Amino acid sequence: MKIDLNCDMGESFGQYRLGDEAAVMPFISSANIACGLHAGDPLVMRSTIRLAKVHGVAIGAHPGWPDLQGFGRRDMNLTADEAEAFVLYQIGALAAFAKAEGMQLRHVKPHGALYNQAARDRALADAIARAVKRFDKDLILVGLAGSELIAAGLGIGLRVANEGFPDRQYNPDGTLVSRKNANAVLESPEEVAVHAVALARAGIYFAGPHVHVETLCLHGDNVHAVQNAKLVREALSKNGFEVKAM
Amino acid sequence: MKIDLNCDMGESFGQYRLGDEAAVMPFISSANIACGLHAGDPLVMRSTIRLAKVHGVAIGAHPGWPDLQGFGRRDMNLTADEAEAFVLYQIGALAAFAKAEGMQLRHVKPHGALYNQAARDRALADAIARAVKRFDKDLILVGLAGSELIAAGLGIGLRVANEGFPDRQYNPDGTLVSRKNANAVLESPEEVAVHAVALARAGIYFAGPHVHVETLCLHGDNVHAVQNAKLVREALSKNGFEVKAM
Amino acid sequence: MKIDLNCDMGESFGQYRLGDEAAVMPFISSANIACGLHAGDPLVMRSTIRLAKVHGVAIGAHPGWPDLQGFGRRDMNLTADEAEAFVLYQIGALAAFAKAEGMQLRHVKPHGALYNQAARDRALADAIARAVKRFDKDLILVGLAGSELIAAGLGIGLRVANEGFPDRQYNPDGTLVSRKNANAVLESPEEVAVHAVALARAGIYFAGPHVHVETLCLHGDNVHAVQNAKLVREALSKNGFEVKAM
Amino acid sequence: MKIDLNCDMGESFGQYRLGDEAAVMPFISSANIACGLHAGDPLVMRSTIRLAKVHGVAIGAHPGWPDLQGFGRRDMNLTADEAEAFVLYQIGALAAFAKAEGMQLRHVKPHGALYNQAARDRALADAIARAVKRFDKDLILVGLAGSELIAAGLGIGLRVANEGFPDRQYNPDGTLVSRKNANAVLESPEEVAVHAVALARAGIYFAGPHVHVETLCLHGDNVHAVQNAKLVREALSKNGFEVKAM
Repeated sequence: MKIDLNCDMGESFGQYRLGDEAAVMPFISSANIACGLHAGDPLVMRSTIRLAKVHGVAIGAHPGWPDLQGFGRRDMNLTADEAEAFVLYQIGALAAFAKAEGMQLRHVKPHGALYNQAARDRALADAIARAVKRFDKDLILVGLAGSELIAAGLGIGLRVANEGFPDRQYNPDGTLVSRKNANAVLESPEEVAVHAVALARAGIYFAGPHVHVETLCLHGDNVHAVQNAKLVREALSKNGFEVKAM
Repeated sequence: MKIDLNCDMGESFGQYRLGDEAAVMPFISSANIACGLHAGDPLVMRSTIRLAKVHGVAIGAHPGWPDLQGFGRRDMNLTADEAEAFVLYQIGALAAFAKAEGMQLRHVKPHGALYNQAARDRALADAIARAVKRFDKDLILVGLAGSELIAAGLGIGLRVANEGFPDRQYNPDGTLVSRKNANAVLESPEEVAVHAVALARAGIYFAGPHVHVETLCLHGDNVHAVQNAKLVREALSKNGFEVKAM
Repeated sequence: MKIDLNCDMGESFGQYRLGDEAAVMPFISSANIACGLHAGDPLVMRSTIRLAKVHGVAIGAHPGWPDLQGFGRRDMNLTADEAEAFVLYQIGALAAFAKAEGMQLRHVKPHGALYNQAARDRALADAIARAVKRFDKDLILVGLAGSELIAAGLGIGLRVANEGFPDRQYNPDGTLVSRKNANAVLESPEEVAVHAVALARAGIYFAGPHVHVETLCLHGDNVHAVQNAKLVREALSKNGFEVKAM
Repeated sequence: MKIDLNCDMGESFGQYRLGDEAAVMPFISSANIACGLHAGDPLVMRSTIRLAKVHGVAIGAHPGWPDLQGFGRRDMNLTADEAEAFVLYQIGALAAFAKAEGMQLRHVKPHGALYNQAARDRALADAIARAVKRFDKDLILVGLAGSELIAAGLGIGLRVANEGFPDRQYNPDGTLVSRKNANAVLESPEEVAVHAVALARAGIYFAGPHVHVETLCLHGDNVHAVQNAKLVREALSKNGFEVKAM
């Protein structure tokens, strides 16, 4: 039994530091690296890739909307065609650092509002899938489990990875409980670890179909980020899962 | 006898249009395409590459300082290490569009202040050459004829192209007459064409050594841009030069 | 009978020029000046104010979403509180140039997607109205005739100006015909002039209530911009209207 | 005996936090607030002003070069005329938040590379002084003690404040020891406090003339920031100085 543990990385910018990447990196198998439009800059991208290399962590592009002040978390209304070009730009920029360091991108996972909009909006999801495929047909597209983004990836012939969130509660139909609800987020690392194992083992039950989860997301900007990563990793190992890149 | 004719392209941004690329493209053999930091955006990069493809024009990255408001024409004081990362970022972003369109980058030519600073500053020039080589050791590095950038490229084992400016006057030592001087720029397309042939044939004489010129730069934002391109192309052909990408 | 003629101005950025402001300025009574986030920069803001001063044209702030690449025309999902701060920032930046040139801001008119979102979304409209009032309670808030932005301005005690679009067709209920429809935009300057007089005289009929129009908007980036401005101005004068700032 | 204690504030941006402003604010008398180009954003500017108001701290604009990624610390080569417009823009943007909160700007202090370039370059210094005066002739211009910026302010008739750095060593001629030297920065809060009192009492001795210091700068992004602020404040009080805004 295998499972991937991914975490958003490379979200610092210039003078500004975000997340404790060196502390989290040892526990994960895949790093989603910001590409300079919603977070990250060329120096941060390079150092994050070098850190991932040291730890044997697989790397992927983490493209977002061009909204640094909003950290890519605000819905934006780019056309699908514009989105395709913006995603391609970001994948290429990150791939250059991978190439310079003798690594290769393994996956692409959209960030924040782009991720959420693409989970619902098939035209946008298709545009992202096209950008990924045109860059490299062997890249894995990571999206919300059971979402339009996963459907778009499959539709275009990409390998996909359904993503689950150990620190988030799910509704009975398999969608995430809105963050506006009091109990949307699991606060204790112990609970997160239990949930991680459950997701890895049983996946997510949507209204009808069941969705297997190939990768679990750890949030790096959480106060419990390092403890979450540590406990999730240990719990998965103890339960017989090999934590391994997609 | 062969000579390359290059022109800076893809300098529009969002709603803003710059240059008449469709009119100039038929006359040139290489397009230097802006990469989004001093000019250009993902949509412009894509459409410029497509236009170049239609015309059989070779494409290269045209990285600049991150200064859109100043169009990359103002000196900035990034460290050599920072400059290397910023150049690599831009090459990669453009290369993604090339890949998506089934093309390959042939060369890299820095823009504006980055070009001029790198002509004088060997540490900066070395950083640019490193970025180019780390991305692809077969890329050609274009720089001011006889400059530090050319020396840096040769020093690291890259193929280089010494660039001449048909619309600019040269000092006896081979440096460009400053734009602050009244006669720095040749205004008439006829004069520019004559100068282009002279540069292609005889190169530039520096204080001592003579420098052969492999590529000539046409400015696309000039009022005479199209006429310059047309006359230069015709004059080179009439004088036995094959206009051909580096 | 008085009517104001306004036009969006100061939309150039750095090296990029947009609109022929010197040609349009003589015909209008109010200039809405971009404030650097969706268009414009400090140099453009200053020169546009100086030009308005020469022509005796009243000036106002034209704040937009922070989206230069999208020219502020894409919906963005800032909270009302964020929008208030972003609008205040832009009004202040422009007011500094007005102050330096011995002028005063007369009005505020949101740009593009901010204008359209605020026409429908009362919370956003209220936020904009608060920003305007907190900066200067004597500023006039310009919005789509009969929109939520007008209601928000009135609700907070600001003077407002209902705006009409001579080059756009209206639906029977007073809303604008979508640009997706073939006949949404009047193309000939003669038709635009006729429509301008009709709007100035009769206002707009909404489902029930009738809305008087205090200001008419001329688009400066239209191919017919100068001719539209000229004919509209002449037609209004010929029909007994004094073209005068709000 | 009076002395001002100032600190750079409002340097967070979007998701990114910098400095512990709430902890430092109680000890200072003046806050220099970033204006969105090298750091800060509309939300941060507003909250910082509100925090200053609560603590009765005077506020001033802290304009910098438009270089967010470089935090305004890299030399840039804007013309004096461009710099004037960029400074005016930033003062105005901040003043809007001051106005909205019922406060007034007391001073202007350039940031980082703009500060350092203006200390040496009289044309740039004059441009900054012009921007300040055109906005409000009663604003105090803060600059490096004995620098060209101070001379420019005096030359144009502004009130000025010579600034000293308690955590930096000075050369015998009154210039700062370069940060490249090992002993350029005083590391212990106790030493910084002793130096603060010395600067407040005796000013700085330049080659010939002696310069009185009206304001002392505390660095907010230092690991010892809060302790420095506390000890400096206490030492000044104990030595008979009233810490008071300029």
